[in-house]
Amino acid sequence: MTSIVSLNAGSSSIKFSLFALDGSEPLQLLAGGKIEKIGIAPSLRVHTADGATSMERDWPDGASLSHADLLADLFAWAAEHPLEGREVAAIGHRVVHGGVEFSNPRLVDDDLLVRLEALCSLAPLHQPHNLAAIRAIAALRPDLPQVACFDTAFHHDKPEVASRLAIPRALHDQGIRRYGFHGLSYEYIARRLDEVDPALAGGRVIAAHLGNGASLCAMLGGESVDTTMGFTALDGLMMGSRCGSIDPGVVLHLQDEMGMSRVEVTDLLYNKSGLLGVSGISSDMRTLAESEAREAEEALDLFAWRAAREMGALVSSLGGLDGLVFTAGIGENDAAMRKRICDRLGWLGVMLDEGENQANALRIGSPDSPVAVLVIPTNEERMIALHTLTILKGLQ
Amino acid sequence: MTSIVSLNAGSSSIKFSLFALDGSEPLQLLAGGKIEKIGIAPSLRVHTADGATSMERDWPDGASLSHADLLADLFAWAAEHPLEGREVAAIGHRVVHGGVEFSNPRLVDDDLLVRLEALCSLAPLHQPHNLAAIRAIAALRPDLPQVACFDTAFHHDKPEVASRLAIPRALHDQGIRRYGFHGLSYEYIARRLDEVDPALAGGRVIAAHLGNGASLCAMLGGESVDTTMGFTALDGLMMGSRCGSIDPGVVLHLQDEMGMSRVEVTDLLYNKSGLLGVSGISSDMRTLAESEAREAEEALDLFAWRAAREMGALVSSLGGLDGLVFTAGIGENDAAMRKRICDRLGWLGVMLDEGENQANALRIGSPDSPVAVLVIPTNEERMIALHTLTILKGLQ
Repeated sequence: MTSIVSLNAGSSSIKFSLFALDGSEPLQLLAGGKIEKIGIAPSLRVHTADGATSMERDWPDGASLSHADLLADLFAWAAEHPLEGREVAAIGHRVVHGGVEFSNPRLVDDDLLVRLEALCSLAPLHQPHNLAAIRAIAALRPDLPQVACFDTAFHHDKPEVASRLAIPRALHDQGIRRYGFHGLSYEYIARRLDEVDPALAGGRVIAAHLGNGASLCAMLGGESVDTTMGFTALDGLMMGSRCGSIDPGVVLHLQDEMGMSRVEVTDLLYNKSGLLGVSGISSDMRTLAESEAREAEEALDLFAWRAAREMGALVSSLGGLDGLVFTAGIGENDAAMRKRICDRLGWLGVMLDEGENQANALRIGSPDSPVAVLVIPTNEERMIALHTLTILKGLQ
Repeated sequence: MTSIVSLNAGSSSIKFSLFALDGSEPLQLLAGGKIEKIGIAPSLRVHTADGATSMERDWPDGASLSHADLLADLFAWAAEHPLEGREVAAIGHRVVHGGVEFSNPRLVDDDLLVRLEALCSLAPLHQPHNLAAIRAIAALRPDLPQVACFDTAFHHDKPEVASRLAIPRALHDQGIRRYGFHGLSYEYIARRLDEVDPALAGGRVIAAHLGNGASLCAMLGGESVDTTMGFTALDGLMMGSRCGSIDPGVVLHLQDEMGMSRVEVTDLLYNKSGLLGVSGISSDMRTLAESEAREAEEALDLFAWRAAREMGALVSSLGGLDGLVFTAGIGENDAAMRKRICDRLGWLGVMLDEGENQANALRIGSPDSPVAVLVIPTNEERMIALHTLTILKGLQ
């Protein structure tokens, strides 16, 4: 009776999922949850496989609790409860950056950690926290196999043109290139699509991962050939609070002419832009959809226009379009936003079935739509667990 | 017997064209030319209407000669020679930025100059030089009507979504928005297209201004609805030495992690990127086409891929495509690059006639191409003269 844990450690949060290896299905979800507000007043919420809250815990005076402290607490607690005595066989981690080198998940060892540490400057807001969690667990359970799963890996083998920025080639060689992210989500979508519609999976597909972070992936035969995020997770689509694509001249102007510091510009573009910046109301799509303010409508309209515009760009990279897959929070649940986007794609042959769209059905295209339109819930945690299981089997 | 002068004053150069108002055609070109290397060792080259060199002058010791000095020299000389005694009736200027306010050319007065001065921070590399030339001529010939023609004006009335960046709305209200440039070129193309193919001019057209600077304009019924350049002339397509669209995270990374100053980053993105940066050889398309280096091929391939990709984006804004017009140095003369780009657009219904393409013919699409493909030489100087003449007539 063993289990696999998926971990996604950020600056102030740790998300986790626990999967049994002994159930009727290959990886049966036992529980999932999230520790939030680390460094302030941490809270833990755990839900069962069917989504019901199974545990809540708050540390109101826990500002001094580190990621390592909280992971130790989590392990101790999990062993008793959701795991019901199951031994943890391995832990898989979401690691944001695999750089130029890593196109596949890797078993963690000291050498790998050194290499991944060297990539921290490419993702300074995420990579250090991903690695800190790995080190904390290595200290806690040095025997436990850990697997690093990279958010960049799915895009690793896309064509050279889709990886290159038009900057001096020496900088490209130093790693300043278009990597792309949300790779674990796209890999999961590619696998699911191959299960539900193998013919379509072999064709030209755009997957739209629309969550608080948002990007598109152009998939040809299930492999990434282009994506909207680039060197960082700031590029491409407009997001909850991130600007997406923006004239680089704006970054210079904010500093040169408006006297903002680099720290202020970084905060502006990551945390105060996107839906939040344009609406002045909220970064949350649901809040904006319920608002009657003109500013909310402008934000929603811009989000849809830009998504449709970037889809046009990716269709060019694909040389046409056979299918469009929506996923992640907005993509899976927001029928109105899917409709706004698809209404702009009639020229491509995208036609919705309004009833199926409202129902968040698997197939939401009208029967005679030349382009198939699907909604497929993503599951990055399961993708991490699948990779971890594969590497675990290789060790045995 | 009168004439109109078009001027385009940059940091180290002044381009000009002289048009007669008394010829058989409305604005007959008498001569054109360029003063270059102002501040170093200025040189003047003048050509006649048929392109033959008619005058060359060098000031090897002219480092101290200002724009105003050289304009005075130019006026004195022109009165004698190409103008053959014709009085200059008005001067039209290319002014890069008309901001939010100006959607049409304007007669220059003190009030206008104050308003245009206030826009210098939006185009610090160009606007001050445009205005300096206006002031120099006002000092020289206070009686002479001068007209400011804005490179942004053609895009002024594009839809709100195409003008907005996903940043806090207060910054949008302060003028940080997508303006678009090459407007005088696109306006000229729209007029010419209406002459050569009025039905197409009423449809969905992408104009590709591919020169050392490069951008695309999506035109619906002859009006701009989207464009690839944004807040500055740095955004959008890859150019001779400019990066075009680039993850804003790169601008921050170059400063934060690689220790570059803002001045160095600005120089890198404007002057060391694009074709030059990727090839490491040249910013000139002809030089790269003649090179056998792999790096030159990579630069050409990236240029075409990105142009086709951005065309996909603009087709989304247009809701489909009826015609594609190539213009400016590369667009008018580089059959091989047009072919590279069009080869990536078969999915849109773009099909070339290879013979017509090689001949730089007006119509280069194959007879059965669902999308019309044209080559139309642009003429920003004539567009400026046309605007100037219109305003001049309004004064009489």
